Amino acid sequence: MRSGEDKSFVLWFTGLPAAGKTTLADRVYDYIAMNGQRAEKLNGDMVRSLFPSTGFGKADRDAHIKRVGFLASLLEKHGVIVIASFVSPYRQARQFVRDQCRDFVEVYVSASIEECERRDPKGLYKKARAGEIKNFTGVDDPYEEPLTPELIVDTESQTVEESVSTILDYLKKYVGEGVVLG
Amino acid sequence: MRSGEDKSFVLWFTGLPAAGKTTLADRVYDYIAMNGQRAEKLNGDMVRSLFPSTGFGKADRDAHIKRVGFLASLLEKHGVIVIASFVSPYRQARQFVRDQCRDFVEVYVSASIEECERRDPKGLYKKARAGEIKNFTGVDDPYEEPLTPELIVDTESQTVEESVSTILDYLKKYVGEGVVLG
Repeated sequence: MRSGEDKSFVLWFTGLPAAGKTTLADRVYDYIAMNGQRAEKLNGDMVRSLFPSTGFGKADRDAHIKRVGFLASLLEKHGVIVIASFVSPYRQARQFVRDQCRDFVEVYVSASIEECERRDPKGLYKKARAGEIKNFTGVDDPYEEPLTPELIVDTESQTVEESVSTILDYLKKYVGEGVVLG
Repeated sequence: MRSGEDKSFVLWFTGLPAAGKTTLADRVYDYIAMNGQRAEKLNGDMVRSLFPSTGFGKADRDAHIKRVGFLASLLEKHGVIVIASFVSPYRQARQFVRDQCRDFVEVYVSASIEECERRDPKGLYKKARAGEIKNFTGVDDPYEEPLTPELIVDTESQTVEESVSTILDYLKKYVGEGVVLG
């Protein structure tokens, strides 16, 4: 039997746009995949390309997260470790996904709105401030911080290495001794 | 290593409403799951519940099948045998799914429209004839028969047992010697 076969889980990165979710998700994914475990990345760009008409109002966001939750839980059930990074600004929607999954690890990727706006790698905050994008989380749409996430990483005060290390440390209980953890 | 770990495939049942797709899919799934292989059933009712606003016009049907194809190929990639039953009336859409998957086995579940309409277990043909349902395949929407499916089972002339046996016979090349095949 494949090592860690039955230790799948859903690692869910939530946070403001440009908080660093995808950077961390990519790094954690690389560690896990390197270890030969089945893993899959899910993120907004990828899933939205399948559902082009999904908007960013609350109802559309909820429908979007519901689909992602279904997908994540299906993969988890079949032994795949899911590394998901989604702004997922609403507590209730995140709770919905958590309830669908067996082992849900919520990682709050924390950075101030000022810092995220300063980074703005895709120029989206700028567009949102200019009114070219509506319902942009942090600008004209709320972000509800997790109240009791499994993990908080502060990408404003920590380096990427430090954040990754915090996450991999926590994951030891799932991925076992065999994994090269950083 | 789990037996048959890398022998995942997508078994795709296509045919008119009430042709017998789900009956056969359920039976084949039971055989495969009984053998301890990872398998998942996908069907229209299940997937449409995630996308409640998906209609039955050609564009909506194509979007629907695109999503299903993505889901099926993702599961297949991770070693899960996918048993999918969808009317999937358009050749091009089925080809799209085939192209996404690694091993795609198309099963044409064939029965005449007269026979399907006689069965009509959900009363849908009746509603379509009465004009209560629009774009119903076989009534006011086309069904494009597969030209070169891997398998054809004729549920009008064959018993369920015979059809299941034909399918399991074909699947021997994937599921190996270990499976109790009927």
